[in-house]
Amino acid sequence: MPKKILFIMCDQLRFDYLGCTGHPSIRTPNIDALAARGVRFDRTYVQSPICGPSRMSFYTGRYTQSHGALWNEHPLRVGEMTIGDHLRPLGTRTVLCGKTHMTADKEGMERLGIDASTGIGALVAECGFEIWDRNDGVVPDGAKKQPSHYNKHLDALGYDGPNPWHQWANSARGDDGEILSGWLLSHASKPAAVAEKESETPYTTTRAIEFMEQAKDESWCLHLSYIKPHWPYIVPAPYHDMYGKDDIQPVKRDACEKEDPHPLLAGYFEHRYSHAFSRDDVRETVIPAYMGLITQIDDQIGRLMTYLEESGQTDDTLIVFTSDHGDYLGDHWLGEKELFHDQSARVPLIVIDPSDKADATRGRVETDLTEAIDLVPTFIDFLGGEVPDHILEGRSLLPATRNLPRTARDYVISEYDYSARPHLRHLSADARSCALTMIFDGRWKMIWIEGHRPMLFDIETDPDEYHDLGASVDHREEIKRLSEALFKWARRQHSRVTISDDKIDTVLSKDDATYGVYLGFWDEDELQTWKDAQDT
Amino acid sequence: MPKKILFIMCDQLRFDYLGCTGHPSIRTPNIDALAARGVRFDRTYVQSPICGPSRMSFYTGRYTQSHGALWNEHPLRVGEMTIGDHLRPLGTRTVLCGKTHMTADKEGMERLGIDASTGIGALVAECGFEIWDRNDGVVPDGAKKQPSHYNKHLDALGYDGPNPWHQWANSARGDDGEILSGWLLSHASKPAAVAEKESETPYTTTRAIEFMEQAKDESWCLHLSYIKPHWPYIVPAPYHDMYGKDDIQPVKRDACEKEDPHPLLAGYFEHRYSHAFSRDDVRETVIPAYMGLITQIDDQIGRLMTYLEESGQTDDTLIVFTSDHGDYLGDHWLGEKELFHDQSARVPLIVIDPSDKADATRGRVETDLTEAIDLVPTFIDFLGGEVPDHILEGRSLLPATRNLPRTARDYVISEYDYSARPHLRHLSADARSCALTMIFDGRWKMIWIEGHRPMLFDIETDPDEYHDLGASVDHREEIKRLSEALFKWARRQHSRVTISDDKIDTVLSKDDATYGVYLGFWDEDELQTWKDAQDT
Repeated sequence: MPKKILFIMCDQLRFDYLGCTGHPSIRTPNIDALAARGVRFDRTYVQSPICGPSRMSFYTGRYTQSHGALWNEHPLRVGEMTIGDHLRPLGTRTVLCGKTHMTADKEGMERLGIDASTGIGALVAECGFEIWDRNDGVVPDGAKKQPSHYNKHLDALGYDGPNPWHQWANSARGDDGEILSGWLLSHASKPAAVAEKESETPYTTTRAIEFMEQAKDESWCLHLSYIKPHWPYIVPAPYHDMYGKDDIQPVKRDACEKEDPHPLLAGYFEHRYSHAFSRDDVRETVIPAYMGLITQIDDQIGRLMTYLEESGQTDDTLIVFTSDHGDYLGDHWLGEKELFHDQSARVPLIVIDPSDKADATRGRVETDLTEAIDLVPTFIDFLGGEVPDHILEGRSLLPATRNLPRTARDYVISEYDYSARPHLRHLSADARSCALTMIFDGRWKMIWIEGHRPMLFDIETDPDEYHDLGASVDHREEIKRLSEALFKWARRQHSRVTISDDKIDTVLSKDDATYGVYLGFWDEDELQTWKDAQDT
Repeated sequence: MPKKILFIMCDQLRFDYLGCTGHPSIRTPNIDALAARGVRFDRTYVQSPICGPSRMSFYTGRYTQSHGALWNEHPLRVGEMTIGDHLRPLGTRTVLCGKTHMTADKEGMERLGIDASTGIGALVAECGFEIWDRNDGVVPDGAKKQPSHYNKHLDALGYDGPNPWHQWANSARGDDGEILSGWLLSHASKPAAVAEKESETPYTTTRAIEFMEQAKDESWCLHLSYIKPHWPYIVPAPYHDMYGKDDIQPVKRDACEKEDPHPLLAGYFEHRYSHAFSRDDVRETVIPAYMGLITQIDDQIGRLMTYLEESGQTDDTLIVFTSDHGDYLGDHWLGEKELFHDQSARVPLIVIDPSDKADATRGRVETDLTEAIDLVPTFIDFLGGEVPDHILEGRSLLPATRNLPRTARDYVISEYDYSARPHLRHLSADARSCALTMIFDGRWKMIWIEGHRPMLFDIETDPDEYHDLGASVDHREEIKRLSEALFKWARRQHSRVTISDDKIDTVLSKDDATYGVYLGFWDEDELQTWKDAQDT
């Protein structure tokens, strides 16, 4: 059987909302079973705590500073290599089923004469993925203008209206049959109007199984990319009332966070969703739905694993389960994501390596620091390719699954650009200076904030990240040390993507005279002496 | 008449080998006349002191860290916008006559399905230039395999042999008619075997005039890119003996430079050409030829100016005269370039702005710090376009020529990657860490050297840059200050090339709810209140 990769991503799934990551009341037996069969990388951070740039880092294997798509709707520059460019030459189809949040660089494509309706152009326009079913999930308005397969599917089943995604899959119904929009948090406890098996998560799973079934004999990397538990927070029966108030974990926030907060945090406190999620009624209404969405995913993971097993593909398939970022859900007085507390920037990551060599590590919890950009190198490594480490900035995780010697990362980096956030723009002079960069070394987490003092948390003494030490005179040395590490990171070679280290060492790194470029020789005798020395 | 740009570049021309920049014995009346007609930017630094990356910065308007072509033969990544991409949409043909030292990203082009034989592909393969005559100058071996127009031209004139470039244009003849290679420094005082008007500089000028003549009615940017006074150091009569020993400036070197030098400098002292140029006989033989090559260029500049004037194009043409880097010629005990002393990293730059608005500044010497990357924005500005400053990292120089308010740059940056230098590789663990970065604020020049202490020069007290203060305890504060500036530079936004600041401010920077993404609303009433507030 050819080698396969099933690369499963959830959207907005926090690291700590799974049974295997310690949530006491959520039921995720199938995902927990994945952890038991593979290695769970407990300290995995995304390269940006928001969909678009995080995913562009997952797909390019590069930091956002390198690929340049710093926020949602920032087009990924044409020519930036993605997962498909790396895996296709290894004979592996790279296929999308679900969400990418990628925006094509139409201007760049036009400049280079690349037509999105041609073979190569279609890949360039879709982040290197062959599209089986793209569904970015949120279809706010004018669905007929932005038809997705999913909307057409609902339409064909008789879910009528201009935007079945909204009206059926992401809304409930009132007593008089009126649409109760899933956008509104008060409706989160109601069941979505769509039949459970036609809701987004089972639909996407069905489509993925259809792909795997018809491509059984090929080598593929299938990116199965669920848009849930991302908002709208609404889920069909029976998941809508599977969890109640008692299943919710106590909110993690502290009054001290509101005492003289860093202006950045103060700005985030003022977001509408931060106000909303600071209310108990919002948390008590929304979190059970969020948990229901996760358990629904878990059930679909079970269905997938049964399919893989029954179709005889388990032994050849690398399985990855992860998420693109977290969700504050009221912790730290915040809603949504975008900052760098673990609730936002840390994600679950499970890797099941089917090789016999990985048998010794099954069920292991790995605590080395891990980054989203490690996946592309892992995939190349699994398929037997050479990792082009002048392009890719991550590291293969297979040494961890196969118990091989490896050097742990000194720190992880995550970046965010708040230029598109009107509530925060008073913090920056222009769109160019809205950069936030987290550096976390396993104990100290520093957030570098252009134009302001940094924020600093000590995870050892303050695991819940309540106490910002960024202004503390006692912590100047830590800030200096982390700033130096960040300086080193910022200086790293990240743009020389067209020539490998190996080619420099073997082809370029020679005396010019070996090419007949005779620099610095006085006369024929001196040149001849040099030539003679080369021959001996 | 449409607007035109004549962008003249020399190769390896030091900043101080012109009459107008203070050389006491060289004769460059035509270039001096350019300085009298325009603004001479006295403190201009290239972004890398070697051909390839320096030119890629001139042509992209971006630092080498941004465009990624860090050394000669590093392909410029496909999709990286160049001068032609910026000027063509303004209706201006962007044309090459001479050298670029650009290597096409063939792998990237193949990946994107871009065929170099098609219109767009041909531009992509040539740094965005329409090729009138490309001549990279050095043709070390197998000229028949690498035919240039120039070699064919010589061939057609009866200059026979497998490589007329070498055998005629860059060699002399001995008493018995034998070829005396211009590669060998001992032959620098002899006349090249080619007729003067068929040597590289007049040939390239003739070709440029041919272009300008047939494109008189169009808007164009012609990059007239001489490969001289770059080695081989040999020039036809009468230029070969126009200068003698007495015309040579005293060598600028000091015994203290050899006392406990920085390992980087020590490595450069050991280069073959550094040994050669530390010899008086080499300097006395080569420098007169170097000066002859410059005066030959000067004569051709005179010819060009006469042509422009007589053809009535002077009043519509922006003229730029510059160089891609300098040449140590034995100063600091060094040959060639690659380090950051002024002899290597500083270049002449003259800009003649034909606008009436520039009349007040004619003949001015501008001392504000200037960078090579300032030219592309200058050209766009001259042609009336909007400078895309999310892509371009330089600044238009027209405020200087037109006496408009502007903010001086705090520092200039220049970078070099020594990974392909076998003599230096003991200084670095791998090809990835061979980075050098100069930051110069007008007084203090620091060279950041990965893995080693920096070098530091105080131009005020040590204008000749003999005393490296990088290890001085008295200068820790200066190093700290410059390191912080370098950190800020390294953090700058340089990869978000697909979306402008303006688009972020006007399109993206809105409350999500304005797009129908209703985050954080509890119920219909709250949403309606928000909507009502938007309408008022």
